[in-house]
Amino acid sequence: MHTRSYFTVRYAETDRMGIVHHSNYPVWYEIGRTDYIKSFGISYSEIEEAGILFPVTNLSCHFDRPARYEDEIVVRTWALELKAAHIQFTYTVKKINPDGSQEELGYGTTEHGIIDSKTFRPVSLKKRMPELYEKIKATF
Amino acid sequence: MHTRSYFTVRYAETDRMGIVHHSNYPVWYEIGRTDYIKSFGISYSEIEEAGILFPVTNLSCHFDRPARYEDEIVVRTWALELKAAHIQFTYTVKKINPDGSQEELGYGTTEHGIIDSKTFRPVSLKKRMPELYEKIKATF
Amino acid sequence: MHTRSYFTVRYAETDRMGIVHHSNYPVWYEIGRTDYIKSFGISYSEIEEAGILFPVTNLSCHFDRPARYEDEIVVRTWALELKAAHIQFTYTVKKINPDGSQEELGYGTTEHGIIDSKTFRPVSLKKRMPELYEKIKATF
Amino acid sequence: MHTRSYFTVRYAETDRMGIVHHSNYPVWYEIGRTDYIKSFGISYSEIEEAGILFPVTNLSCHFDRPARYEDEIVVRTWALELKAAHIQFTYTVKKINPDGSQEELGYGTTEHGIIDSKTFRPVSLKKRMPELYEKIKATF
Repeated sequence: MHTRSYFTVRYAETDRMGIVHHSNYPVWYEIGRTDYIKSFGISYSEIEEAGILFPVTNLSCHFDRPARYEDEIVVRTWALELKAAHIQFTYTVKKINPDGSQEELGYGTTEHGIIDSKTFRPVSLKKRMPELYEKIKATF
Repeated sequence: MHTRSYFTVRYAETDRMGIVHHSNYPVWYEIGRTDYIKSFGISYSEIEEAGILFPVTNLSCHFDRPARYEDEIVVRTWALELKAAHIQFTYTVKKINPDGSQEELGYGTTEHGIIDSKTFRPVSLKKRMPELYEKIKATF
Repeated sequence: MHTRSYFTVRYAETDRMGIVHHSNYPVWYEIGRTDYIKSFGISYSEIEEAGILFPVTNLSCHFDRPARYEDEIVVRTWALELKAAHIQFTYTVKKINPDGSQEELGYGTTEHGIIDSKTFRPVSLKKRMPELYEKIKATF
Repeated sequence: MHTRSYFTVRYAETDRMGIVHHSNYPVWYEIGRTDYIKSFGISYSEIEEAGILFPVTNLSCHFDRPARYEDEIVVRTWALELKAAHIQFTYTVKKINPDGSQEELGYGTTEHGIIDSKTFRPVSLKKRMPELYEKIKATF
């Protein structure tokens, strides 16, 4: 089970090398994560309103080919692991060519703590949002 | 009365034109504003902790010459107008050449509402922070 | 004649005030500009490959209401003025509510020089790209 | 052998969680890298002008504690490995408290190809910039 997020490379995302600056990929992963969470019938905004945050604890990105201004991009996202107060996502980033073929540009992972927005202390997603927890668990 | 803020252009701030992307200038103005406020003996963080926000309502930027990666930049900041629930700042952005001479790259202004962080409604800086209000007023 | 560009607010675009940081609006205008140019049958990438750049010389933004994470945004873009080596665009930014109604968040303008990518000197769009020039002219 | 880079957290770097968005850390690493290269008597701008680029092929970031607006940050940078057409850097990010004590916020690594700016093909730094190559080698 995974989601696909589509968007076009912005001019501001390029750097003087003429390619997308690597610091934009974590932002793109986040677009993927937003859509992935939403596919379970709850938005990440609503999770935060319920007092739960998913701060990033680890990030890794691998870059094979560069993306350029106006490239059509698709990010594929899925959860790799879910524990009580910890969740891990994986992403692949592809470019969609004008002929519809796709080229993989790279991939990455993010690991997140699951914490209370007031105390910044770990909380159990299983206890606080059992329905979401079970839905994600069911994807493994 | 004004402050000067110094920093070096970051690689990520450039775009495929080889120059600093214009969306970074409001961020640079904000560096200037942070230092300007701090010069009155209070940090903008402390203003926010006291429940007051300065959201931007108008922004204008004029660009004469481009900035490039590793350029040494100085932003000069001062307040142009202060009313009960409204404040306006002006900025000039200059590049410092290796020989110490300076070149103006452009200038800009920001206008801000002064609002309560809970209600997002206008508040009187004069009433809520009379000391800061008087200090800024004294610069005109 | 105008174009409409649709996208969702990214988490990374928010700031500690809980709203979209104002420096993202010029980036959003650029998304609008990209789509507007493309509506004339040429991409802005192709204009740059033809050796012409449109660097921003003036930017103004007016902010009425804040945008927040996951808001659906529409940017409406049109050209306001076109001279030999100068072009001006206008943008309105609206939020699309879940019920389909729209709320204006603000508006802005950008002015651009039209320059040669090698010399960074003004060039005549009318001479270098007469077809695009006439198409934009025809919208006034 | 390592360098230290100092700067203050910008407002625009924060997100609605109230902390620095994780996508800024690769930008901070790049500040560190810029200073590290400069410590060998050549700027990264000059390397690029000589036709050599260091695009990022892998990025990893570990986050222990969050950074906040106006925090004073120090990034420590050093090279971990240098091969003919490949270089790896490591970074630690610390916060400097008002009392001068430091707290580690996290660390990261970047791996870079060494390529020709025209062909985007690997080049040997040892051959193209033997002096810089030997200076970096001498730090291991």
